[in-house]
Order: sequence, then structure tokens, then C-alpha cells
Amino acid sequence: MKVFRKRNQALMTDLYQLTMAAGYFKYKRNTKAVFELFVRDLCPRRSYLVVAGIEQALDYLETLSFSQDEIEFLKKLPLFKHVKSDFFKYLKDFRFTGDVYGIPEGTPIFSNEPILQVVAPIIEAQIVETFLLSIINFETMIATKASRMFTSAKGKGVIDFGSRRAQGPEAGVLAARASFIGGCIGTSNVYAGKEYNIPIYGTIAHSWIMSFEDEMESFEKYNEIFPENTILLIDTYDTVKCTKKLKKFKGKIKGVRIDSGDIEIESRKVRKILDSYGMEEVKIVASSDLNEYVIDKFSQKKAPIDFYGVGTELVTSPDAPSIGGVYKLVEIIENGEKKYKLKLSSGKSTLPGKKQIFRKEENGIFKEDVLGLMGEEKEFKNYTPLLQKFMENGKIIRSESNLNLMRDRTIENLSNLEYKYKDVNKCVDYPVKLSENLKKLREKVSKKYGK
Amino acid sequence: MKVFRKRNQALMTDLYQLTMAAGYFKYKRNTKAVFELFVRDLCPRRSYLVVAGIEQALDYLETLSFSQDEIEFLKKLPLFKHVKSDFFKYLKDFRFTGDVYGIPEGTPIFSNEPILQVVAPIIEAQIVETFLLSIINFETMIATKASRMFTSAKGKGVIDFGSRRAQGPEAGVLAARASFIGGCIGTSNVYAGKEYNIPIYGTIAHSWIMSFEDEMESFEKYNEIFPENTILLIDTYDTVKCTKKLKKFKGKIKGVRIDSGDIEIESRKVRKILDSYGMEEVKIVASSDLNEYVIDKFSQKKAPIDFYGVGTELVTSPDAPSIGGVYKLVEIIENGEKKYKLKLSSGKSTLPGKKQIFRKEENGIFKEDVLGLMGEEKEFKNYTPLLQKFMENGKIIRSESNLNLMRDRTIENLSNLEYKYKDVNKCVDYPVKLSENLKKLREKVSKKYGK
Repeated sequence: MKVFRKRNQALMTDLYQLTMAAGYFKYKRNTKAVFELFVRDLCPRRSYLVVAGIEQALDYLETLSFSQDEIEFLKKLPLFKHVKSDFFKYLKDFRFTGDVYGIPEGTPIFSNEPILQVVAPIIEAQIVETFLLSIINFETMIATKASRMFTSAKGKGVIDFGSRRAQGPEAGVLAARASFIGGCIGTSNVYAGKEYNIPIYGTIAHSWIMSFEDEMESFEKYNEIFPENTILLIDTYDTVKCTKKLKKFKGKIKGVRIDSGDIEIESRKVRKILDSYGMEEVKIVASSDLNEYVIDKFSQKKAPIDFYGVGTELVTSPDAPSIGGVYKLVEIIENGEKKYKLKLSSGKSTLPGKKQIFRKEENGIFKEDVLGLMGEEKEFKNYTPLLQKFMENGKIIRSESNLNLMRDRTIENLSNLEYKYKDVNKCVDYPVKLSENLKKLREKVSKKYGK
Repeated sequence: MKVFRKRNQALMTDLYQLTMAAGYFKYKRNTKAVFELFVRDLCPRRSYLVVAGIEQALDYLETLSFSQDEIEFLKKLPLFKHVKSDFFKYLKDFRFTGDVYGIPEGTPIFSNEPILQVVAPIIEAQIVETFLLSIINFETMIATKASRMFTSAKGKGVIDFGSRRAQGPEAGVLAARASFIGGCIGTSNVYAGKEYNIPIYGTIAHSWIMSFEDEMESFEKYNEIFPENTILLIDTYDTVKCTKKLKKFKGKIKGVRIDSGDIEIESRKVRKILDSYGMEEVKIVASSDLNEYVIDKFSQKKAPIDFYGVGTELVTSPDAPSIGGVYKLVEIIENGEKKYKLKLSSGKSTLPGKKQIFRKEENGIFKEDVLGLMGEEKEFKNYTPLLQKFMENGKIIRSESNLNLMRDRTIENLSNLEYKYKDVNKCVDYPVKLSENLKKLREKVSKKYGK
């Protein structure tokens, strides 16, 4: 994400992070904290999440700083008038110096499991909350949605066409990245193709066809320029009538795209006509508000569709338009003393302590996860610990910028997950147990804070 | 949007825009086109939309260019191997040179009404489609959602707390902007505060309280640093128990925030306790997955809530997570000849010709809109034409960067809209008629293209 790094991002945060920072500066200068980013509930819409956005989170942490201009803006806010100037001096030299643990992108995780764990002076760990939440929430939501489409497409390629419905241009690029990690074969977003080396795909739009007086003329002209890469959009006026005229493109086109009407019925009609012309090699691309539920039906009915172009439904994930990630304080270390933390708010209570996720696999199938404490590795010898150290003293020590590896990880991990968790029409709770030590700790700390 | 302008944005587009551009370069060099950006259906979730994002759209159009690096990337794509080098030379000097008409931000519009109208050489008008759609779709969705919350809050302030659930950091800033236009009184996003001069708001987070051993100590410490701006978060452990201890803050705090539990019931309990201490001036801020439906209920039940902090529901708009804007060719001018265009795709047909929206107002109430053709102004003397010229020959000629004016426009316009269209629990079609000339044109062009 090199291009986006250059921009000043320090103020892309909630105001209270900075007022609390001023408070921590005064009272908690030497307090170290552990924050964890996790999602409480996945159901009723998701049985698992595919982690994405770690690379952007780390890039942000490594490069974060406040410009003079930004500091001046804060200084002049009436709100900050009682804050002493040494705080602003501190901001001038601010760097994130903490350690960060995270789940490698492309790994499925479940409710209450930390995706990211920030261990840093509390002031630093607090300031970064908003940015980390927005990037991890968003990319994880998209990678998860894409993985559901991947599953329902049963081997047919799913392509991200969503840029025009993402939350602005940057979101379109990030969505392309996350959807590739989640299992899409590529994107229409050229910037994402360049930046992340993701395969880019494109067909033609109705405007091209409409700009000519004759539909067939528009096809011929396009085919002249892109003789090896022509996918014709055939629904501008009448899909069947159009398809019947395509014999002349035998051997010349790669595919056709259907973007309206009853896609399943139309695809069968189109396939039949093309086959009758001996154009069996011509692929059918379907688009038009597709999602994993519709794709699943097409797969079950064996509709003759070779590629799915997904836009709006992929980038807005309307059945689960946010995944509800939160970033909570679980532990502080003050004057060498460790203090465990939780909140007891109604329906929003949290688990104390710096955690590790232990995953049990048997014969290539994920059986259960145990949410335990970091340091309990010995107790769970036959389990795989999922949280990895990505950053030490503010420097990235484990960099994963190869999106192909992340995508492979998603697909491999999904193959280890029993089908019931992947069934797009169901939500099934995967077993996430708490270790005995974590249970005891929760009990002890809950009592201390009143319940 | 000055900061975002500096970034290379030319490739933030769908691949097919650039392949079509190569085609237009070869065959349609002298063809001028009119594209319109509009939304087909608003129901069942929206009766109107509040336009936003025009400023970002114009900024993009005025500064768009291709860097050498971007052109090299395209040149090397196997896809472009038959495209001659003069196309890439053209991209090197590419500038958007067209005229743009649009609806001033903060104006409510209805189905099929153009929000933006681009009149330019077809190659230029095509390349910009993806960016324009993403920015207008997104900001309009958010401004609309915010306006619904504004209506349901009945005079109580609504504040954007949504950055952490937006689609990445840039989306959080844009959402803050759009939600202010839609009627929010401010945002927690500091960057948006600095960039757009939007009032910024903040309270404290649970982590601040949890970082102290004692809840009251954490409140006192915060109050010392921000004596005139303290809003205490009172639900970390037990809302009522906490409130009962607040007497010592009499005269010292601005408000309290409740973020969990049954907000309506809790707010009444809290109000009662505070009032019993003579702390009537202390405001109650509510947060926790609020939306216009919940706020409407609180308003009806007269819950003692003074401010609503809205996050996830504002920036993801889950009941309508995309507004479905499209960008369609309606007219081309070739060799001096005007040709009207439409598509007849099943369920996705369009209206031909360069349009104007005429709005009829009687006694301060919007009565109906007529969708007519640009040039029909004389026919609709008692109507207000809504589309304004914002850009001429690629230069912005009407700049509106004052968000306060846009916000005022929203509020004034909403007051002209009958309540049934603003009722968040209903969807009512506002009358949008077609002018006789537009109807005739549609009939004529439909016949020509086959129906």
C-alpha cells in the first residue's frame, strides 16, 4: 500500500483518542497496555471470518507521525486549552514503538478470537484504535464475503467488479485486494492490479454498444482492437436476438456477458445457441447484483455460467454490512505490575488478559479452537497457535505482501473447514472453548470489578 | 478535498473503461457524448436521496491525468498489445475538457433524476465513470441516511461516530463530510474537522476508565485536563451504580454517555438521578448501534436523550447499503448530428436525451418534479430547474466548498418536503412525471432500437 502511505493519516482518528492521549500523557506515561481487536458475534450471518487488512494496519503503524500542521490544528482547538505544551512536543516526536501480534491474512477465525493484539505504551496503543478498526473491519468483511462466493461458485471464477459501489476510490482498491485474498480470481480495478499484482479483467459496457448505430458493428470494432480478449456484452437490446447473430464471431471471441433478465434462463438459451454454432469454447460471464446465495442456486441448478462478475453485493456485503470488530483493553503493566482488565457493560462484556488462539486439526479438518492465554503453549502441544508476532518495537518483522500466498492460504484453510461452516445458507457455531486458566482469570477479575 | 487530490487516481477505474477508451480513440475521436448519473429505484427503503459528493467529483475531473508510470503499466498489459502507440501518447496529455451539470449538494432528488450530467468527448466521459459513481453513490447514501436520522431526532443533535466502521480511513473522512451535509451537527473524525471545518466531538472510551483501578478516579483525572468539556462514559461496570456516584461532579461536567443496555430505560434512570442531584444541565449522550428507526422510537417516547452518537448504522446504512447509482449514455453528437440513446435491457431500460429536472413548489411545499429535456425551460416557467452548470471546458466554474451552506440547504429543503416522504418507517413515491417531449422521444428511440 505504498501509495497511500505517503498521506498524513494521524488525524484520521476519533477525537477522543487524542483527548485520552493527553490524559495518558499526564497520568500514564509509563503504563504499557495490551489491546485486542476481535469480533463478538458472527451469527446469524457468518460462521467464520477470513482475516484481511493486516498489511495495511502494519504499514500505518510503522509510518504514523504527526505533522507540524496537524499539531497546530489540535493546539488551537478550544478543547485542548488546558493541555500543557509538553504534550504537543511529545506528538511532534511521536512514533509507534510497540509489538503487534496478528493472524496471517487468509486465515479463518471465529467469535471472540483476537485478529490483532497491540502491546505498547497505552498512549500509542490508544491513538491507533480508529484506523486499525476501520481497515481490519472492512477488509475482513470483504475477504469473508468473497470466500462465501468462492465456495458457492464451486470452482467457477468470481471476479470483483465492485469499485463503483465501494465507499469511494480508496475503498474500491482495498476491496479488490481483500476480495482477491478471499478467493476471487481477479478484479476490474486497474489500480489494484498495478499496486498488488492482482489479475485484472474487463469486458465492455453498454455505452460502447450504444455509441454505435448497430450492435454488431460495435462488436466488430471492439474485436479488431482486442482480438484475443473480446467478451461481448449481449443484453443491450435483446439477449437472444443478439446471440443468434454471433456466428460470425466463431473462433474470434473469448466470451459473452449477460447483465440483466433471468440470468439462469438466459444463460441456458445463450449456451444452446452458441453450442449450435460450434462455439463451445465461448465462455459465459454473468453479472447483475449476484451474491453467494444466487450463485449457490446457479451452481445447484448447473446453470452454464463460467464466470461471475460481482459488484455491489461483494463490496457492500448487505447481509452483513459490518462485522462489528472492537478494540478492547485486556491488560496493563504499571510499575512492573500486571493488571488484567475487562468491561462488564450489559451485553458487551470482555475477556481479560493477553490471549493466544490454539487450533486443533485432525486429519486435515479443524476440530476446535481454544482461546487461552499467551504463554499456555505447553498446555496445548497438539494445537497450532494462530497469533504471530508481526511487529517488534514499532518495526515490521514479518512482512507478507504476496497476495497469492494469502489467497492460497484462504483456499487451503477453507478446505480444512467442515462444510456446515461454509454453507452460505446456514450459520453454525464453530467450537471456541476457553482454557481453564482464562476462565479462572475472568472469574477473578469480574469479582474485582463488581460482578 | 485538497489532500486527496495529490494522489494519482487515473487507474482507480474499471479496466473496461480503458479498453473502451482505446476503442473510442480509434473510432470515435470526434464524438461528443452526454452521460447521466442517476438512481433507478429508491423504494422500498428510501423516498428521496440527499445529493452529496459533487465537490469531490469536480475536483477529480479537474485534476485527472495519467502519469508515465501508469501509462507504462497499461502498455505492458498483454491485453493492450494490439493497441497502437498513439493512444498512449494521447493518455500522456489527457485532461478532462468537458462540461458538467449537477445538483447542488444538500438537494433532495428522486428516482431517475440525474444527479450529474457529463457532456464531453466520449473517451473522456467514459474513463471517469467508475470514480464518479463511487464518490456520488457513497456520499449520497450517507447524506441521505444522516438526513433520516436528523428527521427522527426531532431537533436533538446527531453526531457521526462512524469512522471505525467505514470502508477504510478515506471512507471515514468522506462519511463525516456527507453526514454533516445530511444534517449531523458534527463528527468524531479529527481529519474531517480540520479539512472541512466540521465541528468535532468526543467523549471518552472504556479503555480510559479501565486503565485506572477506580472508575471515579478515572473521571476526576479526565475532568482535570478537560474541565469544560467532560462527557463521562458511565456504563463500563454498572450504569446506575456509577451515576449515583456522580454528585461530586455537579457543575463540572457537560454530559454523560450511555453505550449499552436498554438505552431508553437507562436514560430515564440516569436523568432521574442526575436531576435529583440538581444536575439538570448535564446532557445525556446515547450511542450503541443507533439508527433512524430506534431514534424515532426514542423521540416518540420522549426518552431524555440530548445527543445521539451514531456509528455503524450511519456509515454502512444497512437497510440500504448502496443506492444503485448508474451512469448511462443518453445522447451522442457525431459530425454535428445529435443521436439519442437508450438501452432496453430487461428491467434496466433508460431514458434518452440530455435532461433537466423541473421542480414545482407551492407555498413552500414541493408538489412534483417533471423530468424533461434540457431546453424545455420555457415550458416550465413556474418550475425551478435543478441541474446547474458546475464545470465548463474542464474548469470548475461554480465551486461550493462551504459545508454549512450545504447543510442549511438540506435542512431547508427537507422542510419543504411533506412529512410522508420523510417518515422513516414508510416509503412513498414522490411524483416524478415525464415531460411530453421526453415521452415522445423515448417512444421514437425505443422503436428505432427494436421495441
